[in-house]
Amino acid sequence: MSFAELDHLCRRLEALDHAQAMLGVDEAVSMPEGGGEKRAEAMSVLASMAHEMASAPHIADWIAAAEAEDLDAGQRAAVAEFKRGYINRTCLSSQFVARQVNARMRCEQLWRSLRARNDWNDFLPSFENIVALAREEAACRAEVLKLPPYDAMVEQYDPGSRTAEIVRVFADLKSFLKGFIPEALEAQARRRAKRPLKGFAGPFAIDRQKQLGLALMKAVGFDFDHGRLDVSHHPFCGGVPSDVRMTTRYRTDEFLSSLMGILHETGHGLYEQNLPHDLGHWPSTKARGMAMHESQSLFQEMQLSRRPEFWQFALPLARDILGLAGVEVEDMLGHVHHVERGFIRVDADEATYPLHVILRFEIEQDLITGKLAPKDVPDVWDAKMQEYLGLSTAGNYSDGPMQDVHWPSGAFGYFPSYTLGAMMAAQQWAALERAVPDAAVQIERGDFAAINAWRKEHIWSKASMFSTPEIMRRATGEPLNARHFEEHLKRRYLAA
Amino acid sequence: MSFAELDHLCRRLEALDHAQAMLGVDEAVSMPEGGGEKRAEAMSVLASMAHEMASAPHIADWIAAAEAEDLDAGQRAAVAEFKRGYINRTCLSSQFVARQVNARMRCEQLWRSLRARNDWNDFLPSFENIVALAREEAACRAEVLKLPPYDAMVEQYDPGSRTAEIVRVFADLKSFLKGFIPEALEAQARRRAKRPLKGFAGPFAIDRQKQLGLALMKAVGFDFDHGRLDVSHHPFCGGVPSDVRMTTRYRTDEFLSSLMGILHETGHGLYEQNLPHDLGHWPSTKARGMAMHESQSLFQEMQLSRRPEFWQFALPLARDILGLAGVEVEDMLGHVHHVERGFIRVDADEATYPLHVILRFEIEQDLITGKLAPKDVPDVWDAKMQEYLGLSTAGNYSDGPMQDVHWPSGAFGYFPSYTLGAMMAAQQWAALERAVPDAAVQIERGDFAAINAWRKEHIWSKASMFSTPEIMRRATGEPLNARHFEEHLKRRYLAA
Repeated sequence: MSFAELDHLCRRLEALDHAQAMLGVDEAVSMPEGGGEKRAEAMSVLASMAHEMASAPHIADWIAAAEAEDLDAGQRAAVAEFKRGYINRTCLSSQFVARQVNARMRCEQLWRSLRARNDWNDFLPSFENIVALAREEAACRAEVLKLPPYDAMVEQYDPGSRTAEIVRVFADLKSFLKGFIPEALEAQARRRAKRPLKGFAGPFAIDRQKQLGLALMKAVGFDFDHGRLDVSHHPFCGGVPSDVRMTTRYRTDEFLSSLMGILHETGHGLYEQNLPHDLGHWPSTKARGMAMHESQSLFQEMQLSRRPEFWQFALPLARDILGLAGVEVEDMLGHVHHVERGFIRVDADEATYPLHVILRFEIEQDLITGKLAPKDVPDVWDAKMQEYLGLSTAGNYSDGPMQDVHWPSGAFGYFPSYTLGAMMAAQQWAALERAVPDAAVQIERGDFAAINAWRKEHIWSKASMFSTPEIMRRATGEPLNARHFEEHLKRRYLAA
Repeated sequence: MSFAELDHLCRRLEALDHAQAMLGVDEAVSMPEGGGEKRAEAMSVLASMAHEMASAPHIADWIAAAEAEDLDAGQRAAVAEFKRGYINRTCLSSQFVARQVNARMRCEQLWRSLRARNDWNDFLPSFENIVALAREEAACRAEVLKLPPYDAMVEQYDPGSRTAEIVRVFADLKSFLKGFIPEALEAQARRRAKRPLKGFAGPFAIDRQKQLGLALMKAVGFDFDHGRLDVSHHPFCGGVPSDVRMTTRYRTDEFLSSLMGILHETGHGLYEQNLPHDLGHWPSTKARGMAMHESQSLFQEMQLSRRPEFWQFALPLARDILGLAGVEVEDMLGHVHHVERGFIRVDADEATYPLHVILRFEIEQDLITGKLAPKDVPDVWDAKMQEYLGLSTAGNYSDGPMQDVHWPSGAFGYFPSYTLGAMMAAQQWAALERAVPDAAVQIERGDFAAINAWRKEHIWSKASMFSTPEIMRRATGEPLNARHFEEHLKRRYLAA
């Protein structure tokens, strides 16, 4: 009966997750400011209740007993994934976690004020403390998981991905991009010489932008009976699989940043909406980690919605709703394929973005292993930025190592997910095009049925039944590699 | 350290309450239909977690130990109120509660379909089952609480109110209303003869109605840093004291039903927003039962917002926002003071409403004590309706005993709260006017500061520190009686 015990526990944990997810959405979308203090208290109590409940020592016995029971394949996968989570959850002592939560909260608060003032010196002591705790965390995780320390950190965000593999594909991609980016910029200059980039004649009313966003979400397959679109300061995709809550924010002087953001988040949303329902309260049926999630949003955004064929389909709709007099598909592509070297990761285009990630990946590995001291990060950052993107961040901490929340909040091992996701998306598209050779033509017709059917069969329905690399191998017939992403970039950006 | 144990428990229960309250709001305001199944599951799991946690047997020991500890007055009141709730929660066996939850759900579902078909016969067996369970429940509660059975039921909704007292004030009110209503209708006919009721020239745009509603909420003291107004099918006031979520619904052909509904719910909202923060996670600082809550909404709606002085203040605002060409204060009063005998409690005006409640109170007492069989309810209902309101419901079950959800859902002892609330509101106004003699003039100026200060001092800040009758005695200097409500009705409705 231990599977039944675990099943009951998963239902209780799912209810607490549901509450936390929806309280988070409400906080970002609806909550008046004065409600924040009590909301934070409630969320923190619910989180610690869930953690206590999910980490209780007797669960280890239930797991061992369930493994010996006569279970079907789905139930076995469910217990295995629950066990993986349980081990990752319980490998740190609660005293350590409490120390870490405190340090992270303090460092994150400090970062918010000091980044605005470009103040690295005052930030450094708190950052050193965070790195020291992260090294301790990595050592604990490594011991329990029998993995190298940085691998043990990555395992939290992208189960089954190993540093050696990431190093291999990132090395390939880095050497490719060093030559590619200058070529892409030259090709862009040649295109712009023939056809200058055309601005849009705004303003664009928010209700019209919303109408267009909803129409495109619906066209690409978002199920509005199990989700909705709202407005928040930082766009996100939240909620639960049965009720996916997406947000965007609008500006009236242009519409593309909101629209492409909506399409990106819709990729996350489709993944959530199409997870399996059987054993839906078990972690085996939840989305598979950060890299896979990002592969789904980038698939939707980069592989589908920045294609020329997508704009063949979408531009008439956009014209109907927004006007856009005189704008042609080529003009749209000029915007959605714009490449530019810059300081800021979150503003980067898909060609330069991986270099921002690889830089962080290289630095954080050395921080965790102890090869690099926190105080030396700005120099290393500057040197790498100069080498990869030809930009110096000397003395410019705000646009350098202080630009992201990840490290202040203690999330080491997360950054690779973004670029792994981009490569996975390109590799998935290549596999999909082998199975559905006219997929691009279907997009031109606004028909996403066969594309979504492929994604559902090979990615969405697999949930967390296998590791990320295993899902990729099964879906695409090969291990993750950089070739498809590189080919994709060449096709899109080197055309004259 | 048992007070500390209880304190920790109260924090956990508050977090679960917070989650349930907000999930309920989201469900009514935002949730797409397809999210309903998982939401119901999550809510039911959270509710049973909370019940389990709040009813655990070892809590009895904590309470006993805490009572022996050296506590201040607020802490003592907190423990006493927690104990009251604990006894009320644990006096039914969990097997009985499970049986009852099932029966209630079935009867409520049945009621929804059978009411629409006026089908009493098919409803009766399920209703008989509900009444049998309610008698069993009342007997269990009575034994533990050492109260008569119907008193023990009322105790859940209106702590400290006793049937003998309710009978006394309701008897006074009933005999008054029998003569008063014909007089009020005659006076109304005379007024209408001089000044016919003027219709409003709609349509009224929803955004304008919302603007007016928000302006009046703000004027009467609603704190938008700790609450907001949304739209839902059934208007309510929900959320938590730090974040009060009110809803309304709009129709475009008239604006008064929505606006008066908003003002009614604002009364609930002000009460919640002004509860004490100290020990805010303990039940002693929560609102005091249904009758007191209704007294606050009816105070806002009937005592403040249907006064002539309120419309002196509010009509210019309404004119600015909605237009309302040619409408004068006297015309508004014609609408907000309209009296009419009708079948339906929720549509009744403040003069006829108490007779609907007294009828139900008399019937449900006899149902619980066993004097009346469920099958005889329609005949008794019809006889009382003829006697009290001159209307027959013979054969008309939908507009008779099948009109309310309360009995199908097992809520016996709740109905008196509505009319107790109305009487309490009138008695509070009388006390307030003794303390703030120019209160009515202040309303004419749109100044609610002194009025709200009185309410905060005498009602809101008292939370659940005392029983309902005790709060009334302290606030008004006398026990609850019908005189102030009767005087209020005479002043408002008998003017020629």
